[in-house]
Amino acid sequence: MFRFVNMFGGSPLNRLSWLRTSHHFLNAIITLPESKWVLFNAGQPLVSSAPSSQLRLAYLSTTNVLPFLGPQPFFGQAQAVGAIVTDQATSNVTDAARHHPQSLRISFLGMYEKNEGEGASVLPTSEFSSATSAVEALKRLGGIPYFAMDVADLVSEGQFTEEEILKTLQKDAPDTYYWSEPRALMTGLDQFTAGVFACARSLADWNYRNKFCPGCGSKTYSMWGGWKLSCMTLLPWAEKTDKKPCPSGKGLHNYAHPRTDSVVIMLAVDETGEKIIMGRGKRFPDKFYSALAGFIEPGESLEDAVVREMWEEAGVRVSNLRYHSGQPWPYPANIMVGFYARADSAQPIRVDLDNELVDARWFTREEVLAVLNHTSFRSNKELSESFGDDKGDDPKKVLAEQAAVTADEPPFKMPPATAIAGVLIRDWAEGRIKFDRIQTANL
Amino acid sequence: MFRFVNMFGGSPLNRLSWLRTSHHFLNAIITLPESKWVLFNAGQPLVSSAPSSQLRLAYLSTTNVLPFLGPQPFFGQAQAVGAIVTDQATSNVTDAARHHPQSLRISFLGMYEKNEGEGASVLPTSEFSSATSAVEALKRLGGIPYFAMDVADLVSEGQFTEEEILKTLQKDAPDTYYWSEPRALMTGLDQFTAGVFACARSLADWNYRNKFCPGCGSKTYSMWGGWKLSCMTLLPWAEKTDKKPCPSGKGLHNYAHPRTDSVVIMLAVDETGEKIIMGRGKRFPDKFYSALAGFIEPGESLEDAVVREMWEEAGVRVSNLRYHSGQPWPYPANIMVGFYARADSAQPIRVDLDNELVDARWFTREEVLAVLNHTSFRSNKELSESFGDDKGDDPKKVLAEQAAVTADEPPFKMPPATAIAGVLIRDWAEGRIKFDRIQTANL
Repeated sequence: MFRFVNMFGGSPLNRLSWLRTSHHFLNAIITLPESKWVLFNAGQPLVSSAPSSQLRLAYLSTTNVLPFLGPQPFFGQAQAVGAIVTDQATSNVTDAARHHPQSLRISFLGMYEKNEGEGASVLPTSEFSSATSAVEALKRLGGIPYFAMDVADLVSEGQFTEEEILKTLQKDAPDTYYWSEPRALMTGLDQFTAGVFACARSLADWNYRNKFCPGCGSKTYSMWGGWKLSCMTLLPWAEKTDKKPCPSGKGLHNYAHPRTDSVVIMLAVDETGEKIIMGRGKRFPDKFYSALAGFIEPGESLEDAVVREMWEEAGVRVSNLRYHSGQPWPYPANIMVGFYARADSAQPIRVDLDNELVDARWFTREEVLAVLNHTSFRSNKELSESFGDDKGDDPKKVLAEQAAVTADEPPFKMPPATAIAGVLIRDWAEGRIKFDRIQTANL
Repeated sequence: MFRFVNMFGGSPLNRLSWLRTSHHFLNAIITLPESKWVLFNAGQPLVSSAPSSQLRLAYLSTTNVLPFLGPQPFFGQAQAVGAIVTDQATSNVTDAARHHPQSLRISFLGMYEKNEGEGASVLPTSEFSSATSAVEALKRLGGIPYFAMDVADLVSEGQFTEEEILKTLQKDAPDTYYWSEPRALMTGLDQFTAGVFACARSLADWNYRNKFCPGCGSKTYSMWGGWKLSCMTLLPWAEKTDKKPCPSGKGLHNYAHPRTDSVVIMLAVDETGEKIIMGRGKRFPDKFYSALAGFIEPGESLEDAVVREMWEEAGVRVSNLRYHSGQPWPYPANIMVGFYARADSAQPIRVDLDNELVDARWFTREEVLAVLNHTSFRSNKELSESFGDDKGDDPKKVLAEQAAVTADEPPFKMPPATAIAGVLIRDWAEGRIKFDRIQTANL
């Protein structure tokens, strides 16, 4: 049952995606005593200081967060506050909708099934066709539901101050909670929590930052347990205006769903298999080198993007591509896709084209192994604190975030294995992925 | 120099992405007599009826489209209509900006370099630092520039009627032009034009349909030769209001750039290597079966999405994943990513979970080969015309679009090799991709 899983991948939750449209299901699970919540404040996760010095993602209960959830029903809200949409009025624009002012957007991440394999949680939507049946079905549905939300709107809407929010959350909590720079948390993530965090952060961020319809400029509202956004003008009880109907009302296309931006990240391996190209971004830490990377563009395959980026950034033509694996990167919503490619090392390297790199060069296996064996990596925590504030979602900056440096100064530095760049480098250097010698005429 | 390229991939153009921010460069190339244009009307491409009955994508010259381009300068517009932004006023919100009303959004797709390999077009941004140097550099820059735009806003803004637009374009044209349902064009695309079309359609669609800022609801404007959108409130001469600053002004993240939505598409191969799972979507044509598919979600690797979708749609657990290739799919902006996976065929198949499929079952190599060898495929044109109107971007519907059917009715039908699903099926059935027999205990 081999499946290579990078950090942030391999989510431990059953997403139960087909139940997201059911407000009966969502309303039934949200108040379960075992439900767990991951909170953000404008993208910063709530963390606790554990007995060790490491930050840990804070998991809260529904009781903890109840003051912030707005009026019931939480999902499937009808026109009037406090009313639930009737089965007759249920349509594709009211599926598990939350649209009342002062209703924070809530994301249902999935269920952790303790008895996985027994199929306890595998229930179709039809079992949740009414509030009553939902309660019955719930008894046969094993697992712990996970939710996420971003509380920043409570402050901007004047409902609570930041201090009031933190004080409410802190009530009866054993540890001290605070909002953390999101990358500072990374070393406190085990594989389970990294998977929960990656989904939670990307989804909460998307809900928090997409408040207006790109098609018509009206406000948006939340549906499908946080997995869909719709335009207010489409609600059946919306005031009709003279404006043209919102273009998102027909077909929906990609107005409505969360986006994930693909980034290719790749190592060019020379004709002997013994050298790779790494580069230094403008904002990388001193002496830090990594795999080259870049966003995929419209009308490109992943392979096309690898070829284009290697050429734009390093002036090098590559071929014979080889896929490695993918890694979700929730800053805010990327998927890093790792490749190897082959290149003729006789080609000159030039970095003056897109001007993203200050240097790019060939490294031998010997050089890379010397650094890998030499290094005592500084913790990600220290590292990420050294990087300052907002890096946007530029993959070159993201790579710098993933940097690792050593105490006793090797000749250069490279990313850790928690980032796919580090995995690509190690798998080549340590021979887990082998490359034949090829004729340069075939490159 | 092996690189597997699916239809729509392998763009023939040098995108020169680092020159997109230079209005000197863009203004210099747009009026070249050799520049070619691809036009859309609310997503429908302009096509011509060639001597054969096949539709062909129409390529126009700048002279043809000049009446629709709005006031000069076309790129790098300053506050006043007709004025160009000064070098002093150039900033990251004015880079190649088009923001005046009645300026259609224009996308620069790239250059076709006839002398590829000689590096004629490899000029860095620094060579285009002024209008004068741009003209000089242009003489050394070989190639044919390609542009795209969607003219639908001319009609909605009352500048032209649909008839006037078509009549203007038709002037002196040898063939008859008209707007085509985008999938009806597919059989008229050679590899070169398919690559141009995929980029053109996704980019023109994104510019046409994203008129408002998701962060604050203000209008957006075009930058970077059509590759970036920014919020009007960020222009230096924007009227300052009491509203909070637009959140897209800090970090930008993924407000500003075109999105591409990843779809995984996969075949489960059984423990013997001799059987695969295919399914029938609700809206598929009669007897049509294909690979299962679904959008990647936040916090997932591509591999995670394959595992989840196989389970949600067919109730089957898969492992031992194997990447095949990717295919851009410009309806409107997807990247299809093809995988194989292994599954124990003793597992029951169930399609009642997410309810997307009406059927899914195992097919033997013998059954699949019989259909592949039996079939005389109907043309994509006929097929796509049989599919009616807007399918949205649901990959299950997209698959149906890719269907092929036969005249003499084989027992079932499958997608053509112009779609990655068809490639995955053929590469397995015809033994180009081999699978070992494995013990079910390892699945």
